[in-house]
Amino acid sequence: MSVSTYTLVADDVLTLDAASTRYSPGAVGFEGARISYVGPPPNVRTGTIVDLEGCVLLPGLVNVHTHTPMWLFRGLTEDVPRGEWLAGRMRPLEERVGPRELRAGALAGCLEMLLGGVTTIADRYSDMGEIAGAVEESGLRAVIAHSLYDAGAERGLRQSQALLERFGADPQRSRVWVGLGPHATDTCGRALLREVAALAERSGARVFIHLAQSQAEVAAVRARGYTGCAAYLDSLGLLGPTVVVAHGTYLTEEEADVVGRRRTAVAHCPSSNAKLEGRVAPVARMRRAGAVIGLGTDAACCNNGMDLFAEMRTAGLLNKVRADDPTAFPAADLLRMVTSDAAAALGVGDLVGSLEIGKRADVIAVDQQAPHVQPWHDPVANLVYAARGSDVRAVFVDGQPLVLDRRPVRLDAERILADGAQASRALAPVAVVR
Amino acid sequence: MSVSTYTLVADDVLTLDAASTRYSPGAVGFEGARISYVGPPPNVRTGTIVDLEGCVLLPGLVNVHTHTPMWLFRGLTEDVPRGEWLAGRMRPLEERVGPRELRAGALAGCLEMLLGGVTTIADRYSDMGEIAGAVEESGLRAVIAHSLYDAGAERGLRQSQALLERFGADPQRSRVWVGLGPHATDTCGRALLREVAALAERSGARVFIHLAQSQAEVAAVRARGYTGCAAYLDSLGLLGPTVVVAHGTYLTEEEADVVGRRRTAVAHCPSSNAKLEGRVAPVARMRRAGAVIGLGTDAACCNNGMDLFAEMRTAGLLNKVRADDPTAFPAADLLRMVTSDAAAALGVGDLVGSLEIGKRADVIAVDQQAPHVQPWHDPVANLVYAARGSDVRAVFVDGQPLVLDRRPVRLDAERILADGAQASRALAPVAVVR
Repeated sequence: MSVSTYTLVADDVLTLDAASTRYSPGAVGFEGARISYVGPPPNVRTGTIVDLEGCVLLPGLVNVHTHTPMWLFRGLTEDVPRGEWLAGRMRPLEERVGPRELRAGALAGCLEMLLGGVTTIADRYSDMGEIAGAVEESGLRAVIAHSLYDAGAERGLRQSQALLERFGADPQRSRVWVGLGPHATDTCGRALLREVAALAERSGARVFIHLAQSQAEVAAVRARGYTGCAAYLDSLGLLGPTVVVAHGTYLTEEEADVVGRRRTAVAHCPSSNAKLEGRVAPVARMRRAGAVIGLGTDAACCNNGMDLFAEMRTAGLLNKVRADDPTAFPAADLLRMVTSDAAAALGVGDLVGSLEIGKRADVIAVDQQAPHVQPWHDPVANLVYAARGSDVRAVFVDGQPLVLDRRPVRLDAERILADGAQASRALAPVAVVR
Repeated sequence: MSVSTYTLVADDVLTLDAASTRYSPGAVGFEGARISYVGPPPNVRTGTIVDLEGCVLLPGLVNVHTHTPMWLFRGLTEDVPRGEWLAGRMRPLEERVGPRELRAGALAGCLEMLLGGVTTIADRYSDMGEIAGAVEESGLRAVIAHSLYDAGAERGLRQSQALLERFGADPQRSRVWVGLGPHATDTCGRALLREVAALAERSGARVFIHLAQSQAEVAAVRARGYTGCAAYLDSLGLLGPTVVVAHGTYLTEEEADVVGRRRTAVAHCPSSNAKLEGRVAPVARMRRAGAVIGLGTDAACCNNGMDLFAEMRTAGLLNKVRADDPTAFPAADLLRMVTSDAAAALGVGDLVGSLEIGKRADVIAVDQQAPHVQPWHDPVANLVYAARGSDVRAVFVDGQPLVLDRRPVRLDAERILADGAQASRALAPVAVVR
């Protein structure tokens, strides 16, 4: 079998590797699933030439925290009081959807992200068995974790084990691989978390957990005698470079330091935290102390989208305000938080997150000619503060084209949207009236 | 001469008038420049039928504070320390552009806004004489104000007078009309502001002024013996319903109350305030006390875009955080801040800002079928939190199509972008290296 070979030629290339080189114009070549060339447009061009004039090439974006099936719930829980969202609003909706609906929602969510230049996601939900099929079909690179709770812990662990057998835990071997997903510090007791830690040790899987997302979570953990949610995880050895904690909304500055000192990976979800809790997590402090930070959109129903361009901008503005300093979270750092840093947070920094020879050919082309991203003096600032997901013109994963000319190549967008809308319709018998 | 007649038919119509009616499906009809029908799709359709299936129709969006020519400067002043931006970074750039460049930048800025569904702007800058031509050519509805400073006050007042003679101050009579634009409370002394107030009284023009945008401005006004910038304006009778104050970033809560009690119109620019100052203005307090709030993108170089969809979302998230309350600034209020409330802030609430028979036919069609705005349970939340400027498919001003199928009808986008980029190129002899 011959290996497919591509050369993408564009006006601009940002490598986002350690040297952070810019080529304008530039090119990226693939052989099969791996990058074989990065540099100025070569004289000898091999394989399929893709002319991306008017675009900048970047590594595909990495969304470190999302729940794809919750695409179904967008617009059903808006501007609700703190503390009501999860238990009061989401759980009753979730009870009304079955595996078929979840699968339809997950596929629509994956399509939304692909069109916005996301190539790698960390996805977690209940019933991950069903959802995994959708994620795999989408063509995204994904680490998937089945949510574990004390309630139904044994069944949940069995499902995690089954996923491990199906996909493995090694991102080098499989485009979809498995993480372990204990839900949160209040819904998972010591016994379950010890089992998770042991299974992680045996399988090599990363652990993904919500941390201090709500006041209720913090109160519940304190009621058990811990000083806070981070201390609880730390007492179990569950802070560290192979653990990805999401949110950290209500961490104290001291807890943020502990999370950072353990070199924990943090999924920062600024839109979600602001929208659901009216808060900005102490992520600057975690980062200073040593944490690796990636940005997560969280779900479509708490953001309300899965656009990492919007997320970079939002992370920048909210953190500048939290820091009371407009130099905080500069554009270059924000772009890292959806590329190289995000990849490192998921433990795939050697595979994706930058354009380097030998890495996987996950590459996106972003339009640089629309009036809202011109003039093109500062590509990084334009991408972070001015570009939108809709500016993505082409997406490649493992060297395969998944989006060209802004349209999905393999996925049937019309059918996916129709199925998603249909699956969602049962949730809202009457339209929202304002 | 026959009057052109249109019937737009779409899946959804949000009137955003006092009754806030939704028609799904729905239609909006125009005769000439005015709306003649709003309701369900009529059986008898007259004039040109525009099929906007898969869209929601809204009143055109109103941007209450921008500086169109500063499109030229996007990406040239990023993440700079508080206090450095205006004097340290912008002024030297501004010295390097002439009237021809300003005009090119203004036209590109107008194009950016039109494509994003903006139909009315409040624009202000120096050299407004040149810029006015670009704004007029763009087809936007606009109130334009020439910036006045103590330095060169007499010349500035003469230019304002000339603009008044050219365009008048009556939005009922002219699509482009004139406001008076004293720059800010530190750069305009009592003598100049008294002349402005008198000219406003004589001409009927509104007054537009920056208020408490920077710490330096506040310090300068306090050094003159006032308790703050708002007190200074109030002592001159320059707070009230015919004055539009921009920013208010550093107003105290007490000053915010005064601004509100006078029923002042406020241009809230959340992205700009967060990006340049790391702050959120006390706009919730101003609003509670009686101020009318519209959203402004400010310039392309401080936002970094002029997308009112991004601005709604940003206003919501930042104000939820400032209020420490996720119910603050709900979606319906945010949508009002770029439609009916914004129109009221500019004194054109009887002309635009809602879809009502007799009002001007400024209408936009926004795609509701993209994966990132589906499912369509809550049109208002989807528009505010999930939609992007790029989702705008059609734009009408005064009943004339300015954007169809996402492309400008009258403007030559390629030429405008080429001219804008050319005008901007001289500003950055070397590319930004990060």
